[in-house]
Amino acid sequence: MCRWLAYSGTPILLEELLYKPEHSLIDQSMHARLGVGTTNGDGFGVGWYTPNGAAEPTLFRGTGPAWGDENLRELAHSVRSGLFLAHIRASTGTPVQQTNCHPFRHGRWLWLHNGRIREYSKLKRTLAMSVDPELYPDIRGSTDSELMFYLALTYGLETDPVSAVEHMVGLIEEAGRRHGIENPVQMTVAMTDGERLWAFRYSTEHNSRSLYCSTAVDTLRTMYPDNPVLQQVSDETRIVVSEPLGGLVGAWQPVAESSYELVKPGVGVVGPFQPAPC
Amino acid sequence: MCRWLAYSGTPILLEELLYKPEHSLIDQSMHARLGVGTTNGDGFGVGWYTPNGAAEPTLFRGTGPAWGDENLRELAHSVRSGLFLAHIRASTGTPVQQTNCHPFRHGRWLWLHNGRIREYSKLKRTLAMSVDPELYPDIRGSTDSELMFYLALTYGLETDPVSAVEHMVGLIEEAGRRHGIENPVQMTVAMTDGERLWAFRYSTEHNSRSLYCSTAVDTLRTMYPDNPVLQQVSDETRIVVSEPLGGLVGAWQPVAESSYELVKPGVGVVGPFQPAPC
Amino acid sequence: MCRWLAYSGTPILLEELLYKPEHSLIDQSMHARLGVGTTNGDGFGVGWYTPNGAAEPTLFRGTGPAWGDENLRELAHSVRSGLFLAHIRASTGTPVQQTNCHPFRHGRWLWLHNGRIREYSKLKRTLAMSVDPELYPDIRGSTDSELMFYLALTYGLETDPVSAVEHMVGLIEEAGRRHGIENPVQMTVAMTDGERLWAFRYSTEHNSRSLYCSTAVDTLRTMYPDNPVLQQVSDETRIVVSEPLGGLVGAWQPVAESSYELVKPGVGVVGPFQPAPC
Amino acid sequence: MCRWLAYSGTPILLEELLYKPEHSLIDQSMHARLGVGTTNGDGFGVGWYTPNGAAEPTLFRGTGPAWGDENLRELAHSVRSGLFLAHIRASTGTPVQQTNCHPFRHGRWLWLHNGRIREYSKLKRTLAMSVDPELYPDIRGSTDSELMFYLALTYGLETDPVSAVEHMVGLIEEAGRRHGIENPVQMTVAMTDGERLWAFRYSTEHNSRSLYCSTAVDTLRTMYPDNPVLQQVSDETRIVVSEPLGGLVGAWQPVAESSYELVKPGVGVVGPFQPAPC
Repeated sequence: MCRWLAYSGTPILLEELLYKPEHSLIDQSMHARLGVGTTNGDGFGVGWYTPNGAAEPTLFRGTGPAWGDENLRELAHSVRSGLFLAHIRASTGTPVQQTNCHPFRHGRWLWLHNGRIREYSKLKRTLAMSVDPELYPDIRGSTDSELMFYLALTYGLETDPVSAVEHMVGLIEEAGRRHGIENPVQMTVAMTDGERLWAFRYSTEHNSRSLYCSTAVDTLRTMYPDNPVLQQVSDETRIVVSEPLGGLVGAWQPVAESSYELVKPGVGVVGPFQPAPC
Repeated sequence: MCRWLAYSGTPILLEELLYKPEHSLIDQSMHARLGVGTTNGDGFGVGWYTPNGAAEPTLFRGTGPAWGDENLRELAHSVRSGLFLAHIRASTGTPVQQTNCHPFRHGRWLWLHNGRIREYSKLKRTLAMSVDPELYPDIRGSTDSELMFYLALTYGLETDPVSAVEHMVGLIEEAGRRHGIENPVQMTVAMTDGERLWAFRYSTEHNSRSLYCSTAVDTLRTMYPDNPVLQQVSDETRIVVSEPLGGLVGAWQPVAESSYELVKPGVGVVGPFQPAPC
Repeated sequence: MCRWLAYSGTPILLEELLYKPEHSLIDQSMHARLGVGTTNGDGFGVGWYTPNGAAEPTLFRGTGPAWGDENLRELAHSVRSGLFLAHIRASTGTPVQQTNCHPFRHGRWLWLHNGRIREYSKLKRTLAMSVDPELYPDIRGSTDSELMFYLALTYGLETDPVSAVEHMVGLIEEAGRRHGIENPVQMTVAMTDGERLWAFRYSTEHNSRSLYCSTAVDTLRTMYPDNPVLQQVSDETRIVVSEPLGGLVGAWQPVAESSYELVKPGVGVVGPFQPAPC
Repeated sequence: MCRWLAYSGTPILLEELLYKPEHSLIDQSMHARLGVGTTNGDGFGVGWYTPNGAAEPTLFRGTGPAWGDENLRELAHSVRSGLFLAHIRASTGTPVQQTNCHPFRHGRWLWLHNGRIREYSKLKRTLAMSVDPELYPDIRGSTDSELMFYLALTYGLETDPVSAVEHMVGLIEEAGRRHGIENPVQMTVAMTDGERLWAFRYSTEHNSRSLYCSTAVDTLRTMYPDNPVLQQVSDETRIVVSEPLGGLVGAWQPVAESSYELVKPGVGVVGPFQPAPC
């Protein structure tokens, strides 16, 4: 079922969000509160961009439970980044293996997903065949999540990101209709190109997995004028999470159904998300 | 924290207890009800004796969560045994690695444990040094559980089993006293030599981890005269579990504090367990 | 690059071939002599049928090097079978993960492969699309080997086995021609339905990976009248191997280029293998 | 049997030594030339210090073969360090598990080892008991290598490094004599406190595992005036390796038997290594 978080802002050690908060991502790997189940022990992954580093993000993924991974703990204590995605997995049926851990990477893009394509095995072939033949060989795993990414890439993710994701969902819903599958799409998604970060919340049944975005930093500074962390981070710092990490009251705003949020330098964007016909 | 089960009786496929019951051991790896936590995802192990097979049991252990292990599922569907122990682990601090998965084996003996030696790192050296120097090199892992086994072997497990375990616990409690550790021993233990099966329930604080033994088969046949499974198994068939697997009402009896049960061909034994001074 | 063995005959412990011979499969995982490289440490797998057991074989696969897997050693010492396939893997590019370890299973069939489809990423999509849509969702990994299996199943493996494999190779060679790939197919393959065992040796370039079949048992008894093992095994016992396991001189016969061997109760068959157009 | 490398100097990406050279450490994991065997596939590890980072190094260790580890490749492409140790393992008998991968860490120190204590199981207990009781609980694995580290720490590694290692070896040789073990110690060792780097080459039989140190940079610049890399690295940059990584002729000098080299800011030290009685 999965839980995830995405961070964009002043560079911090990964552990600040993965380990330290009261309800950190690691805590959620064993005690998730707002998901389908409490356990997300079928692998994990982190993708991060380094300031002044390569355009392509670094990926670290493992198949064991996140709570027990010593290497993850070490890296989180050592890696500093201003833009990263982290994910803990609860498999919805596809194998537990590194190629099925999120985030997925393509060039400078990272993508992760919480949710599922309902009755995926019925749609898998037709969806796989809709992926651009040039991109098809780059698919390394067997999840619905990764396939959604490659469909979005096929529909022009790199040029018109939101539209591409809308078309991807539209394609899956259309395929679902043809196969008699009700409510095929359930998703929260995070994706980034290393500069901009999008978060999507949508499901065909309009009852989507939980998703929250941190309150704007300047607002939080007004609410908590003595909090030192808030003084250190940039105004544009935002965190998107499946479920709140704990911390300050009022620090988290739910992301609306059928919407997306775009976090980028300058002013962010919040907009409607509507699947498009293909 | 761990959960476990031990079976002695008419040979059955391992999956009959590991996978099939309503609250099977695999179910307990994610949803334990009577333990310290609900998750036991830090490895697992099974040891089984084959009828007409070698005196030494076969061991299969893995470091991932039991719920996701494909090989375990395969083996459970294929291996038939009349005497086996199975364990799912929640680490109390020592590393997650195959050599730290239970059961542990020495010659024809198997041993597993739920519980802990409190403040183990303070006692580890003195306890390790109390192991028979001839046996010491056979210790392959770093758990308190394995060390307890080797101390019991040191105290004559192979000749006077219950007494050996009583002396082992006595040694640890004495060491605990010297180091100012309150309530050092918390345990349920299963051990077997391939013919006889012992289960122990004891803690210094007299508030031990849960342990149940199946009701005698002839009693169950009286209660459930139409149940076909009960007709097929021998009168001596017994199952010992950390928590009931579900199933028939009245099928499980709690094992008393500070006691042990011995399951063997013929009549079993229930007796008091009292640590002995060393 | 891989090495493998297949056994059909009097039930034996798996370790008799996996571990005990001078140049056992485990030895070949580190010191192969007739393969592309000496190391086959990218995973392993064994599939076996139990006499009086289920029609479906049991599968045990791991991603670590075979030489170091404790569980494999344990199982090999414990499992007795009259029909089994074992494989050690050297990846030709696809990820090291359990779903990419051989043998692959479908119903009662097992399949393994040594070799490759040259420039596989160029052909992957077209070949995947040639798999029967009903079978497509059963593909769990990403190897060329598994895809070859599913193409053979698509072409009627279960009704006309040799012909199905010939059509599968014909399809791949035709696809290779369309994509300008020279010598697309390199293979030795073992497959079985639990009663009959086929071994194939073929490559488009007619320079195939090594493959040997054991000399007929009655011939070996004549050559080695005092050898006790030969007295114990049935006349029909045969072993097929990538490279000889050592042992008796004259015990191994190379399998000819572009041919197949069928081992079954009664008289076996040796025949030509010729790809068929699709 | 193992191979390793240690780097001290101008910060570089780890991949410059782990992956890029003609006979990189990764190449040595499958094709070592100067070791006991060619394969070092029983795990790996890297420990690195970050400029301006914490005093304690970061550790990344895995149990699979280094040649196939995707995470290692990712990190090597991303992590830049001016002081790091890397090791690939061929087990001499102790289990393959993360706690048995080198380097080992204690506080700000890292330690790795190629070689063995001969007949280690006979000496293990007596050596374990010679470790400072305060340090004993910090031992997490079961290798002779880690035990040597903790004995060196016991003998004052943090205050008089070379002397501590000499006493450690002296202790083991003395224990070997008492147990009738000939030539007990075989070692090359690298250790560092984050500022200074020591390499040792010694064996009781005076026939030690291979060890090389890079030629002084200013000498190399004279030999290769057009080489751009040599212009970019500091004069003090040194690499110590089990076997040369390839590259420039004359770039590697063997480390003498029974000696050590100290690399530090300013002038390094080369000195004799002589075990001390305990």
